[in-house]
Amino acid sequence: MSSKLEQRLTEMGITLPAAPAPAANYVPFVVTGNTVYVSGQISNGSDGLILGKLGDNMSTEDGAAAARTCALSLLAQLKAACDGDLDRLVRVVKLVGFVNSTADFTDQPKVINGASDFMVEALGDIGRHARSAVSAASLPLGVAVEIEGIFEIK
Amino acid sequence: MSSKLEQRLTEMGITLPAAPAPAANYVPFVVTGNTVYVSGQISNGSDGLILGKLGDNMSTEDGAAAARTCALSLLAQLKAACDGDLDRLVRVVKLVGFVNSTADFTDQPKVINGASDFMVEALGDIGRHARSAVSAASLPLGVAVEIEGIFEIK
Amino acid sequence: MSSKLEQRLTEMGITLPAAPAPAANYVPFVVTGNTVYVSGQISNGSDGLILGKLGDNMSTEDGAAAARTCALSLLAQLKAACDGDLDRLVRVVKLVGFVNSTADFTDQPKVINGASDFMVEALGDIGRHARSAVSAASLPLGVAVEIEGIFEIK
Repeated sequence: MSSKLEQRLTEMGITLPAAPAPAANYVPFVVTGNTVYVSGQISNGSDGLILGKLGDNMSTEDGAAAARTCALSLLAQLKAACDGDLDRLVRVVKLVGFVNSTADFTDQPKVINGASDFMVEALGDIGRHARSAVSAASLPLGVAVEIEGIFEIK
Repeated sequence: MSSKLEQRLTEMGITLPAAPAPAANYVPFVVTGNTVYVSGQISNGSDGLILGKLGDNMSTEDGAAAARTCALSLLAQLKAACDGDLDRLVRVVKLVGFVNSTADFTDQPKVINGASDFMVEALGDIGRHARSAVSAASLPLGVAVEIEGIFEIK
Repeated sequence: MSSKLEQRLTEMGITLPAAPAPAANYVPFVVTGNTVYVSGQISNGSDGLILGKLGDNMSTEDGAAAARTCALSLLAQLKAACDGDLDRLVRVVKLVGFVNSTADFTDQPKVINGASDFMVEALGDIGRHARSAVSAASLPLGVAVEIEGIFEIK
């Protein structure tokens, strides 16, 4: 019943979270033509929000794990945008990753790799995307990472 | 003579500002296909630029009011992009809101809600958008908020 | 053999750099329909990465020069996206420029002008773009500027 992509995720031992509700007065995604814009997803694990500031109280490895949860939430939103059928995904177009960090932290790429690596592991070639990775002075609710995404669907 | 949308704004007591000129060598919007990309609009009220840093010298409520002025400027630019006819708007696709804040501020969503709430109040369902809200270390000229937008038009 | 646009660059004394490889697990650009999304390009000159923090150890003029190198890299990636033929460029749609700065720096527009001015000098009217310019708390590897771009091609 589930899509091939979700079967692959299951084989990887991954269950998509429920598509998180937005933290404010907006919608989690908008579809225009064949393009899906997914709102910024904040780091959120099975134990709740993943808070932290890179360069201060969180390691790069833990930051990458936080970024991975953002990628899971992006896919969960994308599934909702595809009416439940992830096989409609043509490709991940672009991610913009914001890292909550100190002013001297320089490993933003390694942190956001947690999301990029997951996309390629889970989706293969259609998971390869354009990307920007920068630091934010701070992020909503004190989360460690926020990532937004653009996807092409059919 | 004016569009239905502008009549609604008038009923809300809202007059769109003149579409602000860009602060540098670029254009306020670009139309490609049915998509309008509007340049980042900085907080600017009837008394001039709205300066401030959230978490330091500006309250969340004042930040939300600043964000609302960015939304007004976005609509003003959109009107220009539509040759004056806002009824050509199909929907607000996405906003990215940057909040000028300290490193420990965590209410970015409440600040950017000032813009999101306005879009939904003014436009109804077509005002509902995807969104990211993050902090910037600082913003042009010291403004409190900068918001860019993507819109679908017909 | 080269495109008219590259001839113009040559007349300006400009040689496009080799399209930089991404710093992590993603691709330098994605083409979807007629739109090219180019990944964030970090400031990188003939002597290597251009590091610095505006408002601390780098002048606005040097920041603008750093931003110009990002624009060169964006065009180099765009050329690759166009299979070597820059004349396929319809227009520069949008740039988002991130400036590595202190919390009180306010000349982001002047810094990112280094990229915007170059686009217009090199490309003429099709170089005029929508834009956002904000500060990042920090940037990958400590670079001074990172700029991502959206382009329309035929």
